[in-house]
Amino acid sequence: MGNTVGEFRKKLKIADIKGGPDEGLNRVGQTVVVMGWVRTLRVQSSVTFLEVNDGSSLSNMQCVMNSDAEGYDQVESGLIATGASIWVQGTLVASQGSKQKVELKVEKVVVVGKSDPSYPIQKKRVSREFLRTKAHLRPRTNTFGAVARVRNALAYATHKFFQENGFVWISSPIITASDCEGAGEQFCVTTLIPSSREAADSPVDAIPNTKNGLIDWSQDFFGKPAFLTVSGQLNAETYATALSDVYTFGPTFRAENSNTSRHLAEFWMIEPELAFADLDDDMACATAYLQYVVRHVLDNCKEDMEFFNTWIEKGVIDRLNDVAEKDFVQLTYTDAIGLLLKAKKKFEFPVKWGCDLQSEHERYITEEAFKGCPEIKAFYMRQNDDGKTVAAMDMLVPRVGELIGGSQREERLDYLENRLDELKLSKESYWWYLDLRRYGSVPHAGFGLGFERLVQFATGIENIRDAIPFPRAPGSAEF
Amino acid sequence: MGNTVGEFRKKLKIADIKGGPDEGLNRVGQTVVVMGWVRTLRVQSSVTFLEVNDGSSLSNMQCVMNSDAEGYDQVESGLIATGASIWVQGTLVASQGSKQKVELKVEKVVVVGKSDPSYPIQKKRVSREFLRTKAHLRPRTNTFGAVARVRNALAYATHKFFQENGFVWISSPIITASDCEGAGEQFCVTTLIPSSREAADSPVDAIPNTKNGLIDWSQDFFGKPAFLTVSGQLNAETYATALSDVYTFGPTFRAENSNTSRHLAEFWMIEPELAFADLDDDMACATAYLQYVVRHVLDNCKEDMEFFNTWIEKGVIDRLNDVAEKDFVQLTYTDAIGLLLKAKKKFEFPVKWGCDLQSEHERYITEEAFKGCPEIKAFYMRQNDDGKTVAAMDMLVPRVGELIGGSQREERLDYLENRLDELKLSKESYWWYLDLRRYGSVPHAGFGLGFERLVQFATGIENIRDAIPFPRAPGSAEF
Repeated sequence: MGNTVGEFRKKLKIADIKGGPDEGLNRVGQTVVVMGWVRTLRVQSSVTFLEVNDGSSLSNMQCVMNSDAEGYDQVESGLIATGASIWVQGTLVASQGSKQKVELKVEKVVVVGKSDPSYPIQKKRVSREFLRTKAHLRPRTNTFGAVARVRNALAYATHKFFQENGFVWISSPIITASDCEGAGEQFCVTTLIPSSREAADSPVDAIPNTKNGLIDWSQDFFGKPAFLTVSGQLNAETYATALSDVYTFGPTFRAENSNTSRHLAEFWMIEPELAFADLDDDMACATAYLQYVVRHVLDNCKEDMEFFNTWIEKGVIDRLNDVAEKDFVQLTYTDAIGLLLKAKKKFEFPVKWGCDLQSEHERYITEEAFKGCPEIKAFYMRQNDDGKTVAAMDMLVPRVGELIGGSQREERLDYLENRLDELKLSKESYWWYLDLRRYGSVPHAGFGLGFERLVQFATGIENIRDAIPFPRAPGSAEF
Repeated sequence: MGNTVGEFRKKLKIADIKGGPDEGLNRVGQTVVVMGWVRTLRVQSSVTFLEVNDGSSLSNMQCVMNSDAEGYDQVESGLIATGASIWVQGTLVASQGSKQKVELKVEKVVVVGKSDPSYPIQKKRVSREFLRTKAHLRPRTNTFGAVARVRNALAYATHKFFQENGFVWISSPIITASDCEGAGEQFCVTTLIPSSREAADSPVDAIPNTKNGLIDWSQDFFGKPAFLTVSGQLNAETYATALSDVYTFGPTFRAENSNTSRHLAEFWMIEPELAFADLDDDMACATAYLQYVVRHVLDNCKEDMEFFNTWIEKGVIDRLNDVAEKDFVQLTYTDAIGLLLKAKKKFEFPVKWGCDLQSEHERYITEEAFKGCPEIKAFYMRQNDDGKTVAAMDMLVPRVGELIGGSQREERLDYLENRLDELKLSKESYWWYLDLRRYGSVPHAGFGLGFERLVQFATGIENIRDAIPFPRAPGSAEF
């Protein structure tokens, strides 16, 4: 096909043809061209059925071909097979099948790229574990195509929500030599080790060192140790205290050695930060945000959501409708503990006031009771007047548990400095963060949301490694 | 103010008040509240003028205060000063000044957060070099507030353009253990070095090593050397050959030791990838994209663009209008060389067919001649039938030079394998990339655009370190 393929670009995608309210019936009689990949092939004596998918929608174009169609010999020679890419031209006709309103009566077919018989995604069902080893091909399956489209819709809805509400998108830095972040294990970023091609055979003693055998960071790219960010919050605060309302949406990292279905070493975070705002504003924002993106997916990804509802988690659509329409229950930490203490359920981790809520507790609250609760946490959280709790909140949702964690930030310089002292954190390292409290400090609040958790929540997909195209986990950074 | 600040959230921002077509005149007589930061303060005998900015727009709210306003004592005591955050309530009145249509007649003012007299951004002009050392405060200046808003508009327009054209946003991985990328110096990502707090005092011999003194990568987080990505293109290709049209928008990295005004170690890239597409489709997409985002900024950031046009680069608005409205000139590499050979200009790097175009050549073509040209480049570019050139293009624009680089990808398995052999690259490392050519390969094309270059192009800002909130460069990863 080569360079003649240019003229194809003006053609419609399958979603354009079949995606309208009458599912393509308005186009019956038109000559259309479809370009995509063969999902299945069914050869009968008089007629051949091809299911072609171009990724624009879950549903395929059913192509019906008689032996007099131009290019039919490619069926006989085996060139047209599962996984092959093809160009098909035909007339759109009403379908007699129950699965679609229209189908394509093929006039001409051309194999653009054949598929080697070793193609690993044949019609038979393949496990999601197996597909993780084929991350470059899994988007060609129903499940991962649908996950990609819903993930995309959630991302776009995220931008739309914040933009429509006057927030400014900020790119917080990925590499940071600031040791302000503290929380969690960090990846070191360095050029002291030779770049990719030679790295595998690098001698340890080639790493620059000082006279007393320490790593000589002055020779590293940034002149000191640098790490991958675990959160853009502190940086977002600097922009919130200038532009009022901002949000980040970018990758963050944890070098935690946990090989679970809930953790990734690399994941995307959404972190809005609101100036002149308190915890109530923060909760109102989190609620409005979540309801907006859920509604967007329900409205714009109907076919994919039906698929998840049937094959991945029965009831996921009802669950999302509940979130989009019902009020969230706000529950103080104390009330949450009270609820758990009264529960007729035996928990593995015993409950008492002051304890961190465990997954089993969160699940009880959201699935058997309802939702909402603050905890006792990070240095930047605003101290409440009781002197023992902070203005923090978690938004718990069924199935995923904690989806959003947020807080009002400590805007009072003296309180913040005391807190750093208490935690033995260096005030010098936080000079710029403290400056925000020195010059025109304002009450402000924000939250963080792990984007892949949101994808899990919206699709019902169980393992977080299936919620991102190329998951990174201990021992695993292929592709 | 503390927790009572919640009720403030319902209030309007300055952009809401003054941003309409009649610049606020429709609200004259209304009581409004403004919350923001004091930019300047002018105390006259009978009246005090405060310029307050909340970051929602370039322009401030001029607040006019008589000595009988509630809270006026905070002017006398010096609490209300440049940099302080305030809450002001008053009546909107028509302004007698020429710089704004409306101003606020203050009834009540409250200092939310005072500003220490050491506040480094006083009214006097400060250099952009100095402001880079205050990256946490510089968004409070006119220039960096405007850059942040235009950057935001460009990002949102990017998503809008691709979403409206049926592209799916893909997050390509940031950490990669695949050594497919090759191009450019990479940062190593490792947990063999202790995390942040202890890193500074790490002995070299604590790094795990094998018997023969090599770094023991089996003990690293990913079990082998891992790096920060230099491009998401190869990953995007995997999704394009499943979903047809996709794009990435995420951070990428170069560990190049170049301390210039054109390079960053960490920058954001936009990389669309189109299936069933050739180089013409690619150029058409790049042109449509650029014209769309430029038009979006001209339409939505009028005030900020006027600011850039006046203070940063005279003529930037005309330049952008040209790009949005005029056709791009397409020029083959051979014609570009011809043009340079005929030029009545002496170049530092001599020109002949086969050479790479240098910045001076690019500048000549875009600023003195016009634009467009393919070069001889990476392994994945599709070989032309002449056997010596590839189907690649650069989009050159005035001031920035190369803004977009793109190509049709080599979709033919045998050509690609030969090319890897020629370049002595390992076919085993590229197994998954080659798979895309093994199973239903399609002609496809894409391009890459450095987002900070686009910000420079749109704003006229000279140094790329001023086009991103927290720039990373050799020796510099503060904040």
